[in-house]
Amino acid sequence: MQKILVIGGVAAGLKSAAKARRCDPQASITVLERGEIVSFGACGMPYYVGGDVPDIGALMKTPAGNMRNADYFKNVKDITVRTQTEAVAIDRRAKTVTVKTLTSGETEILPYDKLVIATGASPVKPALPGIELENIYTLWHPNDAKAIRQGLERGRFANAVIIGAGLIGMEMAEALTLWELPVTVVEMKEQVFPAFLDPEIAGIVAKYAAETGITLLTGERVQGFSGETGVTAVETDQRSIPADLVIMAVGARPNTELAKAAGLTIGITGAIAVDEEMRTSDPDIYAGGDCVENVNIISGKKVFAPMGSTANKHGRVIGENLCGSHMKFKGVLNTVVAQIHDLTVGKTGLSEREAKELGYEYVTAMVAGHDKPHYMPGAKLITVKLIVETKTGKVLGLQAVGEGEIAKRVDVAAAVLTLGGTVHDLFDIDLSYAPPYSSPIDNVAVAANAVMNKVAGKLKGISSLTAKKKMQNSPDKTIFLDVRTPEECKQICLADCPNVKYIPLGELRSHLEELNKEDEIIAFCKISLRGYEAEGILEGAGFKDVKVMEGGILAWPFPCEKGK
Amino acid sequence: MQKILVIGGVAAGLKSAAKARRCDPQASITVLERGEIVSFGACGMPYYVGGDVPDIGALMKTPAGNMRNADYFKNVKDITVRTQTEAVAIDRRAKTVTVKTLTSGETEILPYDKLVIATGASPVKPALPGIELENIYTLWHPNDAKAIRQGLERGRFANAVIIGAGLIGMEMAEALTLWELPVTVVEMKEQVFPAFLDPEIAGIVAKYAAETGITLLTGERVQGFSGETGVTAVETDQRSIPADLVIMAVGARPNTELAKAAGLTIGITGAIAVDEEMRTSDPDIYAGGDCVENVNIISGKKVFAPMGSTANKHGRVIGENLCGSHMKFKGVLNTVVAQIHDLTVGKTGLSEREAKELGYEYVTAMVAGHDKPHYMPGAKLITVKLIVETKTGKVLGLQAVGEGEIAKRVDVAAAVLTLGGTVHDLFDIDLSYAPPYSSPIDNVAVAANAVMNKVAGKLKGISSLTAKKKMQNSPDKTIFLDVRTPEECKQICLADCPNVKYIPLGELRSHLEELNKEDEIIAFCKISLRGYEAEGILEGAGFKDVKVMEGGILAWPFPCEKGK
Repeated sequence: MQKILVIGGVAAGLKSAAKARRCDPQASITVLERGEIVSFGACGMPYYVGGDVPDIGALMKTPAGNMRNADYFKNVKDITVRTQTEAVAIDRRAKTVTVKTLTSGETEILPYDKLVIATGASPVKPALPGIELENIYTLWHPNDAKAIRQGLERGRFANAVIIGAGLIGMEMAEALTLWELPVTVVEMKEQVFPAFLDPEIAGIVAKYAAETGITLLTGERVQGFSGETGVTAVETDQRSIPADLVIMAVGARPNTELAKAAGLTIGITGAIAVDEEMRTSDPDIYAGGDCVENVNIISGKKVFAPMGSTANKHGRVIGENLCGSHMKFKGVLNTVVAQIHDLTVGKTGLSEREAKELGYEYVTAMVAGHDKPHYMPGAKLITVKLIVETKTGKVLGLQAVGEGEIAKRVDVAAAVLTLGGTVHDLFDIDLSYAPPYSSPIDNVAVAANAVMNKVAGKLKGISSLTAKKKMQNSPDKTIFLDVRTPEECKQICLADCPNVKYIPLGELRSHLEELNKEDEIIAFCKISLRGYEAEGILEGAGFKDVKVMEGGILAWPFPCEKGK
Repeated sequence: MQKILVIGGVAAGLKSAAKARRCDPQASITVLERGEIVSFGACGMPYYVGGDVPDIGALMKTPAGNMRNADYFKNVKDITVRTQTEAVAIDRRAKTVTVKTLTSGETEILPYDKLVIATGASPVKPALPGIELENIYTLWHPNDAKAIRQGLERGRFANAVIIGAGLIGMEMAEALTLWELPVTVVEMKEQVFPAFLDPEIAGIVAKYAAETGITLLTGERVQGFSGETGVTAVETDQRSIPADLVIMAVGARPNTELAKAAGLTIGITGAIAVDEEMRTSDPDIYAGGDCVENVNIISGKKVFAPMGSTANKHGRVIGENLCGSHMKFKGVLNTVVAQIHDLTVGKTGLSEREAKELGYEYVTAMVAGHDKPHYMPGAKLITVKLIVETKTGKVLGLQAVGEGEIAKRVDVAAAVLTLGGTVHDLFDIDLSYAPPYSSPIDNVAVAANAVMNKVAGKLKGISSLTAKKKMQNSPDKTIFLDVRTPEECKQICLADCPNVKYIPLGELRSHLEELNKEDEIIAFCKISLRGYEAEGILEGAGFKDVKVMEGGILAWPFPCEKGK
């Protein structure tokens, strides 16, 4: 009868224990958790704080409503779960773990045949002046979430500041605006979601966030906090921001102290190194979840990418291998998806920035369009950016943003990426089509087509950011050709550009003499579908340098003037 | 300057014309359409009839609101579109088409260098007695949709009968129930969606359809129609059904007369045969859209699978190849998705029935679960059935049904199928995870895990249909172990089974003596997640023959008794 010891009672730890029990009904399986609770759905906390989830207890229950506590695991899975029990040292030679019962302070020595380290990650709380003030939270323990929610319910907060415009930061920004609290997000880097979005997609997110009452301050560094007992202001390198609620969301660090002390190999990302079978440098010790590093399937590089979904996969692989299997974990795509009110943004694989840094030669296309036929109620515009390796056609990554269905497109791309598929594969997929769900040519296929058109020289694109720079730097050399209707231009126009020429698409063919065949012409419309038609008309008429502004006005991430 | 002639002005025809224009700005391109309109979004008709789409004109417009008529195509794409113009004969030696202008009756001869046949398909209208009566429609031409909608708006109909429980039949059933009309669907085969669903998934659809007021009569054959001028009843082999509105939705036939008369090869499905480049047996003639046959990527078999999404892909491939490319169309997966009120059902690849007919050795798993974490508002239960080749692990097909997000799961599977992926690939995919969109272990990954568990002998499943047969045929030999709570059993129970044993999961370990280790035990709960736990407990305790009823009560497609 093998003795399995698991350190850490959340996703990876409990999943590996449960899976091991399934393969080995005789094993003795013990899970050690230093906190009071186990198997907690931490990713749900922003939705509890925002109020969508009424009771935090729901995050600890099974779908059938059972509390996932020690009794439950004993009774249903025959797994011993010991909460408030900390593993303080691993003796790899003796194959024992020194364990401390936190309530009594007593220690004991537990033997193992196989050990699983699933110690998770902890939020970074930098040692800034004033960091100890009250009402400065991280979102890590349910008690944090409960305290924030209680404060919100009692109307205690008037101004919230969030430090960090990553996933948790923006999820919390959404949550707090649901309480009609003024929310400011301060981000050190130049854009929202700096870790995974390209700037033109980030621009769309930022524009939307501003519309929903989130003040986003990018390129701004927090230097400390003011206040007597409770925080009253966040001090940045540019200003003092009144704040009586602060959420620190500047990332997480893997909890590796125990592994390090035991002499296990730590990877270049600072997380525990594991092989494909989730084994550490000690063959009797596995590790999984937020404390280990992963491999990015596309780049082959090691990454630190803590995600609940990945932790669960780790758990399954570890559980199988605890029973003698040799199941492999392939790696991650750094896939993310986030909701900000009605907007969704997602990414899988590499961003353009990452592709560039890794030295790929690539083509990108950014296309905007409805997420289902425009005539269907509820059809929404979404923008998809696809990155493809030029030489091989291999898909490198996809980003998508908009008020329509985003997760589906990200997941289709994730499937293609996992299998090493090409842009032609993306075109080929027989995606489900019916008007309530999608258009006959799905947005990802449109993006694939645009990339293929670019490779074939049939589409020359320019990003909105590059176009904007041209507007500012060389207004005389470039014509911005707006082929929308006059009515559309009344709603939103590119007010700050001196060189915009309006010719609605239907009149373009008969007004060609108003344009110069030698000029650089950047055509666009609301989503640049008509911009693409305009490119065809102009090129067919012998114009030399015509480009399409990709994603059109929808991807123009700058303030627009109304009614000009 | 090459002359391109296209016969048929809907999806495939116009797409190939537009694509050809893009590659060849000099070509003369003419599209012949015998109807009055072109580029019509026919798939939107049920949503116009149902009222979701207020104006049928929207189905003929671009997203920017332009009517896609002859002027539009001339003006924007420099394509000549001739409506009410029928191609009556092809002379392949002379490379000409005889064309008849329907308004004047005049004929003329048009030369071509390359010809595209995109004549579409027509609905089957069998020669049953009374088929000529008024108010018996097919849903093919917008005039049909307009007439039906007008009749509905004026309250002219009291009883609708739909013949055929396929995609159009069920979409129309939904549309008519939106007008609060009693709707009966008569289907010759034994189930709803007989062409693509396995019976246990069809059972879930049928149960839901019944709850939304659709009377579904399966295994029943229509023999004719009664009435004087307008239809008053549908006569089947079992009854007379009052009806003042009848929709015939018994399938479509490819329009191949022209191709046949020209001596082009017709495939075994009865549709026009084309090669991978969408070329017919004449190298100067391409064909695409609903008039051609496709290859199913998984089976390699020819299939007739008319879909707007496929037609658009054909158009792109043809357009490229008209300009000298050699682009290939890979084939189809017979992917479908359909909405019936809040329920969605979809399928991609092979059904179990198809896999069996094709001689595959396969494993299936059917799993039910929430489409996002159960604690999130709007989380809904969905059921996924996965079919995998035993020997290779290759995914053969997936079906999904429920009130939650279905299309995403179908599309992920479609991507895996297109790339020839395995069940392990399905587990590997780093799908996007955030609580508003999905659970950390997505439903398709749960299905993949269940298949792997079955292959490894760690899960023994039984379908609800087989379980039901056991209930009826051998009630003494099988124990049905319901591990739900007593409260859940009060809501819905398996009333017609004499051999149900209730032991809530939490009490199972302490009540093992109530069960016999030698009996066949079929464990289940609402979704059989606890059923699976019960299997683990019983097998761990030495029980010999334990199975899980896959999909649980949710997949029990029989009427249930309340409050027993």
